[in-house]
Amino acid sequence: MSFQRSPGTQDILPGVVEKWQYVESKARDICRRYNFREIRTPLFESTELFHRGVGETTDIVEKETYNFTDRGDRKLTLRPEGTAGVMRAYVENKLYGEPDVSKLYYIGSMFRYERAQAGRYRQFNQFGVEAVGSVDPALDAEVIALGYTFYTEVGLKGVRVEINSVGTPEVRAAFRSKLLAFLEPMREHLCKDCQSRMDRNPLRVLDCKVDQHKFTDAPSILDSLDEECEQHFTKVQQHLSDMGIPFDINHRLVRGLDYYTHTAFEFKAEGIGAIDTVGGGGRYNGLVADIGGPDQPGVGFGIGLERTVMLLEHQETELPDLTSIDVYLVALGEAADREVTRLVYELRTAGIRAERDYQGRKMKAQMKSADRLKAAYTAILGDDELANGEITLKNMATSEQRSVKLTELAAALSKN
Amino acid sequence: MSFQRSPGTQDILPGVVEKWQYVESKARDICRRYNFREIRTPLFESTELFHRGVGETTDIVEKETYNFTDRGDRKLTLRPEGTAGVMRAYVENKLYGEPDVSKLYYIGSMFRYERAQAGRYRQFNQFGVEAVGSVDPALDAEVIALGYTFYTEVGLKGVRVEINSVGTPEVRAAFRSKLLAFLEPMREHLCKDCQSRMDRNPLRVLDCKVDQHKFTDAPSILDSLDEECEQHFTKVQQHLSDMGIPFDINHRLVRGLDYYTHTAFEFKAEGIGAIDTVGGGGRYNGLVADIGGPDQPGVGFGIGLERTVMLLEHQETELPDLTSIDVYLVALGEAADREVTRLVYELRTAGIRAERDYQGRKMKAQMKSADRLKAAYTAILGDDELANGEITLKNMATSEQRSVKLTELAAALSKN
Repeated sequence: MSFQRSPGTQDILPGVVEKWQYVESKARDICRRYNFREIRTPLFESTELFHRGVGETTDIVEKETYNFTDRGDRKLTLRPEGTAGVMRAYVENKLYGEPDVSKLYYIGSMFRYERAQAGRYRQFNQFGVEAVGSVDPALDAEVIALGYTFYTEVGLKGVRVEINSVGTPEVRAAFRSKLLAFLEPMREHLCKDCQSRMDRNPLRVLDCKVDQHKFTDAPSILDSLDEECEQHFTKVQQHLSDMGIPFDINHRLVRGLDYYTHTAFEFKAEGIGAIDTVGGGGRYNGLVADIGGPDQPGVGFGIGLERTVMLLEHQETELPDLTSIDVYLVALGEAADREVTRLVYELRTAGIRAERDYQGRKMKAQMKSADRLKAAYTAILGDDELANGEITLKNMATSEQRSVKLTELAAALSKN
Repeated sequence: MSFQRSPGTQDILPGVVEKWQYVESKARDICRRYNFREIRTPLFESTELFHRGVGETTDIVEKETYNFTDRGDRKLTLRPEGTAGVMRAYVENKLYGEPDVSKLYYIGSMFRYERAQAGRYRQFNQFGVEAVGSVDPALDAEVIALGYTFYTEVGLKGVRVEINSVGTPEVRAAFRSKLLAFLEPMREHLCKDCQSRMDRNPLRVLDCKVDQHKFTDAPSILDSLDEECEQHFTKVQQHLSDMGIPFDINHRLVRGLDYYTHTAFEFKAEGIGAIDTVGGGGRYNGLVADIGGPDQPGVGFGIGLERTVMLLEHQETELPDLTSIDVYLVALGEAADREVTRLVYELRTAGIRAERDYQGRKMKAQMKSADRLKAAYTAILGDDELANGEITLKNMATSEQRSVKLTELAAALSKN
């Protein structure tokens, strides 16, 4: 009997995992510069949290969560997204009591039971940031800038920013009536999804890929904004322009989650064929209170890392080499083998990336292995050399060889 | 209504998370030097895999797993340990087809429903390595050396290595009879745990904390080793001695898992009070075949990261500062505020760790914030200075101030 991974899950193997390491270290590095600090919350939370924090009627909670009960009969859910857990932790650990804005980031796995298809995983990974404690539009702009910087610095080309204002709940309620007045007469000509969205969240109807073309004359939420909303949105745009971050306004952009207020945004990139949304977020001024915390405003984004890595591969972006080694040690004979075991330990302790054979292979096979590992040097130890306390060091690029004292090998390699 | 995290789970918050980042980056750095490459497997696998890969009758599988069915009615289990999933991935992705030994590592969350208590979590984190494809005792020694190097380099003091040989299944069967002959006469005087272990896995009886003192005259498995086992064990010890890694032989060390062959080992450290096992592992020559793969030998360890971080805190180990910033920008007035938004973006893009205020606070509060963030510099921008295209840069250590052109701020800060 042999085992397979569960459908929709993935193994990230050596060769690919280095791309992940690179992308994640970039995210961490940028967050450090932006003074966002990491938070790690559990991979499961009480089911109720997601009902409140994501929304009872969202597709995510209705159809896609992994629910289970633990051995203590608690109703738990594997997190389908990152924001609810971070907000729960923000409230439970009273981070709102700190004098500064809480600028938090996370990198980790999320779980949604979606139809398995290429590039869509049931366990997938997100990089997200959440900044809680300020209504300053400069913070909206900063969060957008951080995401944009991330894509740019990992080396993706052609990433665009789209922004919108979805207003306050009051603004949205008024716009909703206007929109429904426009949509009702065409209800029967719309797709099933649109019809069901009309009842649950009519703003999302405008997002529909199928019926898009029927909405050319639909009202724009931007015409319904009150003064406060308008001012906030204008300032976000000003800041983005000041920073030189290119963006487009898309008045139909609403995102899948119900909790956004004011700014909503998406990052788009040329995918394999069509333009894809690779990340997005917005401001959520009511969310913290919704899950039982104080009335603290927030803004954040979530970026899909699978998409990011796929696009890097698709665009054939050159990434730094994270796998080559400094030296491959070849032992000829049993005494040499024992010394190589010690030596390789000494080198690694000195900070040198060193490898050796463990399969008793012939010299030729070991040299091939050194090639595969892109070793800068090989060091060959036979019994004679061992007796003299020396080793033969070969530069793999130039094929130059020289004898080095065993006691000086680490130093010789460190200098290169 | 407000939410709590589920019992036994933890939030790792800013202030503590930097210790985790440090420990993990050390692990990655060391693995790079040892030429171990990362593998990421799913957080859940088929329940059956753990029954086969961990053992039906282990405490872990019997009492501690999180089991659930997905919306496709598959029986799944959150991984309670790292080895089974890595071995499943090794087989499924045919890594055994590669010419070199597969040297893999993982860092990630595991899940066991244990009694919630201080330092024990139901979602906990492990750093583990698995080297598959060689029976060379040098590889056992390398894996032990890697773990020892990890503890040493993160800065833990007093970590000791204990090793044992648990032989082959044949050796163990013979020893089991001898041991049972010794134990049977005292069965009724042993604790409940021991009695139940006598039937399931009598070798683990010797590990019992309660009855320990009754086993002084118990037979040692080391006296039952055959020649092959003895040779292997001797060579592992030779290599460790050559490397200068201090170790003790503990002939009662058997580990909780059934699959070990030959070498078993543990890392011990002075905990809060007692000596604690902080990590351990061993050779598992039958495991890959057990889960349906080819007959490939392996050796690996799992290290508890919660324990590692706790010990670092307990030993008050000084870690590098991963939170201080380079500059805090203070804006005085609305026009300056807008420029600071742009400027902070420019600095961060140039690689500088920069922060600012988002709450419209007075200058004094902003300077306090700069102090809290351990800013090396503050840069103060008023409307007058803005008009002149300048900013006041203050060195927070010396209190020296000077005027710098806005266009030269990034360069001025990069030089410092």
